[in-house]
Amino acid sequence: MIIVLKPEATPEITEALLAQISERGLTPLHMPGVERVVLGALGDERVLAELNLESHPMVESVKPILAPYKLVSRELHPHDTIVKIGSLPIGGRAFGVIAGPCAVESYDQTSNTAQLVKEAGAAALRAGAYKPRTSPYGFQGHGPEGLKILKQVSEETGLPIVTEVMDTADVEIVAEHADALQIGARNMQNFALLRAVGKAGKPVLLKRGLSAKLEELLLAAEYLLAAGNEQVILCERGIRTFETATRNTLDLNAIPYIKQKTHLPVLVDPSHGTGVRDFVIPMSLAAAACGADGILVEVHENPPAALSDGAQSLYPEGFRALMTALAPVAQAVGRTLA
Amino acid sequence: MIIVLKPEATPEITEALLAQISERGLTPLHMPGVERVVLGALGDERVLAELNLESHPMVESVKPILAPYKLVSRELHPHDTIVKIGSLPIGGRAFGVIAGPCAVESYDQTSNTAQLVKEAGAAALRAGAYKPRTSPYGFQGHGPEGLKILKQVSEETGLPIVTEVMDTADVEIVAEHADALQIGARNMQNFALLRAVGKAGKPVLLKRGLSAKLEELLLAAEYLLAAGNEQVILCERGIRTFETATRNTLDLNAIPYIKQKTHLPVLVDPSHGTGVRDFVIPMSLAAAACGADGILVEVHENPPAALSDGAQSLYPEGFRALMTALAPVAQAVGRTLA
Amino acid sequence: MIIVLKPEATPEITEALLAQISERGLTPLHMPGVERVVLGALGDERVLAELNLESHPMVESVKPILAPYKLVSRELHPHDTIVKIGSLPIGGRAFGVIAGPCAVESYDQTSNTAQLVKEAGAAALRAGAYKPRTSPYGFQGHGPEGLKILKQVSEETGLPIVTEVMDTADVEIVAEHADALQIGARNMQNFALLRAVGKAGKPVLLKRGLSAKLEELLLAAEYLLAAGNEQVILCERGIRTFETATRNTLDLNAIPYIKQKTHLPVLVDPSHGTGVRDFVIPMSLAAAACGADGILVEVHENPPAALSDGAQSLYPEGFRALMTALAPVAQAVGRTLA
Amino acid sequence: MIIVLKPEATPEITEALLAQISERGLTPLHMPGVERVVLGALGDERVLAELNLESHPMVESVKPILAPYKLVSRELHPHDTIVKIGSLPIGGRAFGVIAGPCAVESYDQTSNTAQLVKEAGAAALRAGAYKPRTSPYGFQGHGPEGLKILKQVSEETGLPIVTEVMDTADVEIVAEHADALQIGARNMQNFALLRAVGKAGKPVLLKRGLSAKLEELLLAAEYLLAAGNEQVILCERGIRTFETATRNTLDLNAIPYIKQKTHLPVLVDPSHGTGVRDFVIPMSLAAAACGADGILVEVHENPPAALSDGAQSLYPEGFRALMTALAPVAQAVGRTLA
Repeated sequence: MIIVLKPEATPEITEALLAQISERGLTPLHMPGVERVVLGALGDERVLAELNLESHPMVESVKPILAPYKLVSRELHPHDTIVKIGSLPIGGRAFGVIAGPCAVESYDQTSNTAQLVKEAGAAALRAGAYKPRTSPYGFQGHGPEGLKILKQVSEETGLPIVTEVMDTADVEIVAEHADALQIGARNMQNFALLRAVGKAGKPVLLKRGLSAKLEELLLAAEYLLAAGNEQVILCERGIRTFETATRNTLDLNAIPYIKQKTHLPVLVDPSHGTGVRDFVIPMSLAAAACGADGILVEVHENPPAALSDGAQSLYPEGFRALMTALAPVAQAVGRTLA
Repeated sequence: MIIVLKPEATPEITEALLAQISERGLTPLHMPGVERVVLGALGDERVLAELNLESHPMVESVKPILAPYKLVSRELHPHDTIVKIGSLPIGGRAFGVIAGPCAVESYDQTSNTAQLVKEAGAAALRAGAYKPRTSPYGFQGHGPEGLKILKQVSEETGLPIVTEVMDTADVEIVAEHADALQIGARNMQNFALLRAVGKAGKPVLLKRGLSAKLEELLLAAEYLLAAGNEQVILCERGIRTFETATRNTLDLNAIPYIKQKTHLPVLVDPSHGTGVRDFVIPMSLAAAACGADGILVEVHENPPAALSDGAQSLYPEGFRALMTALAPVAQAVGRTLA
Repeated sequence: MIIVLKPEATPEITEALLAQISERGLTPLHMPGVERVVLGALGDERVLAELNLESHPMVESVKPILAPYKLVSRELHPHDTIVKIGSLPIGGRAFGVIAGPCAVESYDQTSNTAQLVKEAGAAALRAGAYKPRTSPYGFQGHGPEGLKILKQVSEETGLPIVTEVMDTADVEIVAEHADALQIGARNMQNFALLRAVGKAGKPVLLKRGLSAKLEELLLAAEYLLAAGNEQVILCERGIRTFETATRNTLDLNAIPYIKQKTHLPVLVDPSHGTGVRDFVIPMSLAAAACGADGILVEVHENPPAALSDGAQSLYPEGFRALMTALAPVAQAVGRTLA
Repeated sequence: MIIVLKPEATPEITEALLAQISERGLTPLHMPGVERVVLGALGDERVLAELNLESHPMVESVKPILAPYKLVSRELHPHDTIVKIGSLPIGGRAFGVIAGPCAVESYDQTSNTAQLVKEAGAAALRAGAYKPRTSPYGFQGHGPEGLKILKQVSEETGLPIVTEVMDTADVEIVAEHADALQIGARNMQNFALLRAVGKAGKPVLLKRGLSAKLEELLLAAEYLLAAGNEQVILCERGIRTFETATRNTLDLNAIPYIKQKTHLPVLVDPSHGTGVRDFVIPMSLAAAACGADGILVEVHENPPAALSDGAQSLYPEGFRALMTALAPVAQAVGRTLA
């Protein structure tokens, strides 16, 4: 940690700060310059953070040197982690396609969509029983009834299930019905939920928040690992920027960054990432090309009748076209479709 | 709602869409143009949203005409709502100053800070017993013990209490100890929490999310009102932008916008809004000048020793300077300090 | 164009506005609703814009229906335009790789880098003689001397040259020395420069501004086409967002959007788009996968000695690795390296 | 400057980097840590920047300690600079109101508006003869004819003139007709223009770019001062964010930041900053309250007939209401209207 002092900081203040650093078992450094004094504190950044030096009236700025996360860091754990959703491994040589409708609307709709995505080559089913909606007047999901439908469709098709949990009170029931628990973008920093899901004993799919820096995504994952759950998959799903041509700005830079910093696998959600059906296929191919471990994609048997997210859902034939286009791109980067 | 069709939409599709609009009891409009056809659908935007027309393959775009919220709208409820936090009215002629430390650290620290902000003129106390922290290794708050301290300090000083609730499981206990429940920026779209707090029977302070559009803030408030709670205060606390000179970008444009669109009162949090102690006073004055109903400001008896947010907390003398500077500005815009 | 009136607009105002629309030869539409009146105006959006209806005190909002650009639109010109930089066609089946150093530093450095990128498969050379630098104390480029070096290296290697022009006063001299004129991100809305370059009779590479919406990029291109120049190539080079893990956020969503809206070809600049050397290869592959017509990439014979942008410049071996990795991805999407 | 090395950096690399730092006359520092080595380099940051250490393959990151600007810095020049636009001092105790139409449309319109803003208390006239427009089909200004009108109206009313220059080729003619040259937001990093205007011998009003960080605004001002012009006024005019409720997000945090870092005066443009007529008055009051030295505000004798920016232009009575409301707020913070 680098501590830049204000020009008016006296030698006494400098000494007091250096002493404070030493007392916590860290290595203090003194760098007097022409215009101002700079201090250093080397050691565990988590201890350093507790010093809270940026609050001091004579401190101009504090710059961390090392990442504030540990368990998710590739430095600590150099080899790629493979997380299994049911029988589907995410993070190895296979490129996993998880597809399905935005929401569980009915048994028939869920079952039909599951059948068609399975036939086209999907390896897992996604669909929401609890739906986070901007307006209180939007369709909020069928809740426990939706979970039952998902479980039944999973048994009938053999596809493992990924579904969202939005409340600590629902973690147990969702964990009983799903193969992986999704934490949605709006809840990435719902720390109570992170702690509860971290203890649920199921793989977790953690989506990046709309305005989350990548370091904050890794810190949110650190909550899960610190709670004892190492089965964590990250997911880039678009960030909020000034651009209005797309619903969100899918940030594929995130993929090489995440691969460099952490051992956890990462998926891309091109449906939410763009919000535009026509862009889902090209962005899926881009995701495969830049190193993602799979995609999470919305497909509906009849998008105009969808209760949510119809504008970004692929038609069945669109999903088949996606799978056909994906195979050679995955192969070009040394992967195979799961 | 305005529905722009793709150039290739046939007359049959146009007619089918118009029929769909009529069936829901809305007024359909047909506007054939040279290059493409535009349709209109007039009526309750909430019903319109259910039509989900943007999913249709022949629909290029859908543009809402009216706001998607109702209960929070000034159109429905033209007069300003006044919300009372204990005995403190927010939203009338008085300008309310709610001050206190970021977190309840101990009885002494909370009590001392409460005394000093009361003496300087604060009308309510803010402090967190549950703290949302980006890192799992940061101080997370004292929880129920913190709530007890707050209750005791409130009784001793007569200051009403505003404190954050982060989990549906804690709503009851927080409501028992506090005069107003704060929903923090990270939880603005934690819909489970909104629903639970909406039923808690206590005034709510709803903070704008880091990347929340103002319309989304109003829709989050609509969740609270739709759950039966009309005692809602909004709070602008800075948004996330590209600028790194400040922790967040305090968006004071929000104040006249909110005053125009809704009858609910609005506060400004210049501490989180800037993240820089030296900017808290000027931005507090700006907040008063542009029509805010009060401020929420962090004060610590000894900021360098604060367990969180020390860099943005005012020193006691800084808070007194703020109150001295605020009075004439409030008066200049026809308000008085509460 | 859809015009939403305020609730207090009288029938007289409505009629006056409809008359104003008719007078300009546009088709007026009257849509009285329960809560407010909505008007429509169908016809050329350029004429509509002149009506300036959003200024009217009784107009709540104005929403365009059609795109405000014409010459760049795919509706007007459905087939892909191919732009030739020297002998290199951009926009057809070939995927063009334009590589070189950030700046012309010396004849030797430029010549060496040109040789090595040519040997590895680049089809054109990029390098700046005029450099836009945030600080007045940064290296500003060698100007006319740099242009002469570029011309000489082009003759020696056969590689066509792309280089930036920053001032209307320099358009002529740059056009004499280069095969394509680059308009940099900071100048995307330097309208005087757009007009001057539009008349220079050379192909143009127009980079998206740091905070330019895609529609604004297309309107900037419209300036060039309206000035008589149809040889325009667009370039996505990253936008400014809240994310600080990368220098910019490369927005690959732009590629399918641009391909849908316009007939002009589009390149991707992964060097500026990420600012991180290690991310250049994965993002180049992603660019190829999602439909870009080529890339613009920074390569330096010795990046640590580069006078600018060293952190994002590939080493020679990195560039060779990029070309090796690109070929199968380009092939997977039906393209070949130029 | 703090240089963090990668974990794999060898002692030889460390020594070579330290030697490189010494050779440039800077003070090198060696800070070996448990996980990695950190180096320091103390001295003139402008020399440090030339070292370009971030390009080195063994360097993980480089963090500047001091600001990269010098002449604009308050450290070098602690007292406030007062810049005079004609007879109007900006930066002292007076709060300056510069008002007028977006564009010079005709002599009558300019003269009428000048008269009315003068009567209401404005101290200078703003209006554009050259207009930067997103679309090539928008009104582009009357150019030299507009400048003549401005000069004539200035002589008739006694109001000094602020007007925009967009091209290096026009600097001379604009300098002959105006009292201050405005550099618009889109040209804040048009470095050729900055250099030309820096030599023109007239006061400059430099507007912040739509996506410019405040440090970049100060570096753009540094170009002007480095070219010999110390008569520079900064202007906050709104930044581009995700929020669509306002045209831009007026960033008033900029005011205390600029006041802290530089000796130059700063204005606020609430017209472009919000894009909404109804928000201009409250944001003007906020600007005065937080320490701005004045405002730049758009007024039109008849906004619905304005050729540009009508939606954000005040009506004459709105401008009079603004002046009435401003006086007590300015007084509350110890200023008087100029």
